[in-house]
Amino acid sequence: MLDSLKIPTIAISRLSVYARHLALLEGNGEEVISSGGLADMCGVNPAQIRKDLAYFGEFGVRGVGYYVKELLFEIRKILGADKEWRLGLVGVGNLGSALLRHAPFSDRGYIFVAAFDKKPGRIGKKVNGIPIEPLEAMNHVIQEKGIEIGVIAVKPDLAQSAADMLVRAGIAGILNFAPVQIQRPSHVCIENVDFSLKLDVLCYRLTSDVGR
Amino acid sequence: MLDSLKIPTIAISRLSVYARHLALLEGNGEEVISSGGLADMCGVNPAQIRKDLAYFGEFGVRGVGYYVKELLFEIRKILGADKEWRLGLVGVGNLGSALLRHAPFSDRGYIFVAAFDKKPGRIGKKVNGIPIEPLEAMNHVIQEKGIEIGVIAVKPDLAQSAADMLVRAGIAGILNFAPVQIQRPSHVCIENVDFSLKLDVLCYRLTSDVGR
Repeated sequence: MLDSLKIPTIAISRLSVYARHLALLEGNGEEVISSGGLADMCGVNPAQIRKDLAYFGEFGVRGVGYYVKELLFEIRKILGADKEWRLGLVGVGNLGSALLRHAPFSDRGYIFVAAFDKKPGRIGKKVNGIPIEPLEAMNHVIQEKGIEIGVIAVKPDLAQSAADMLVRAGIAGILNFAPVQIQRPSHVCIENVDFSLKLDVLCYRLTSDVGR
Repeated sequence: MLDSLKIPTIAISRLSVYARHLALLEGNGEEVISSGGLADMCGVNPAQIRKDLAYFGEFGVRGVGYYVKELLFEIRKILGADKEWRLGLVGVGNLGSALLRHAPFSDRGYIFVAAFDKKPGRIGKKVNGIPIEPLEAMNHVIQEKGIEIGVIAVKPDLAQSAADMLVRAGIAGILNFAPVQIQRPSHVCIENVDFSLKLDVLCYRLTSDVGR
């Protein structure tokens, strides 16, 4: 097995983008795509695609390009996207509720099977068919439903304790929407989604462009 | 003026993280922070902070560290975060509604002042006090309310036309939540927030860790 630490996260993100566009091509009945054609769709250059794929083996045929179905299959296998992943949400506020209803997740095999909240008024209600459970039930529900990924959508000051509870329940993968740095044991992977950070980058660009 | 293209986006993201933690320190009444202390809070090493700041000038005092208030002021100025930014939302579905209510945005000077949708049933309603306008009003409302940033939260197949409308209305900065590659003129900046992509990276890590 390859040492996953050697492969930059940005390359993995690009594989995910390639898979998305290959799925579109497959849906349109396309069997082959030139490397230039795929690169254009994904907003990169063909050499980048070759380089990213080279971490995992040899793909593509000289003078032909890529076989859509085959490459999609291989990339999905690499990404672990050839199976369904079971997600549990912590924090069913505005953002959390929107995530439970977020169609692109389930379209791609990410299925919410449970949601947790600390507010008594929310317990027992359902969002998009998913019942809201009390935090105390987390250990039990995570085991019972085979949840592999925890999604944190609580307020910033509660994010660390939400993560601690998930880790105690055996979760090793966390998607964190709270704009804070979460401490965790080294075996736990965290990916952060931070809207405000993206806005900061955008505003920096807009500000520094003024002088051009 | 510095050429903004030379500074990597990742460095700008880190400045944003530094600013967030400096703001916490300021809120706690801290006047000085050692470079090691700030680095620990932000999950980087002190050399990284020095390197990122060096793009913009000299900060910090040898043997002391950083003056919290002063460094926060400088970073906010660099990021363009020393002013309020006026945002307009396109697409008031589940995610869009959650964004309009997303407190961390307004806390940091990102203020939604208008929202647009194509569904007649939504027009005229308010979310978090912000009235939902028809798409046809976009040009006029963007001018009138001085909107600088467009936020796209429509379905993937509508994202390009939403972006085109924003650009025609004079918007040069877009935060895009739709999982598609948006084409735009070169003067327009786009930042993409893609939840599924982060999940793909997470699942790749979880999958490739299994063999360790």
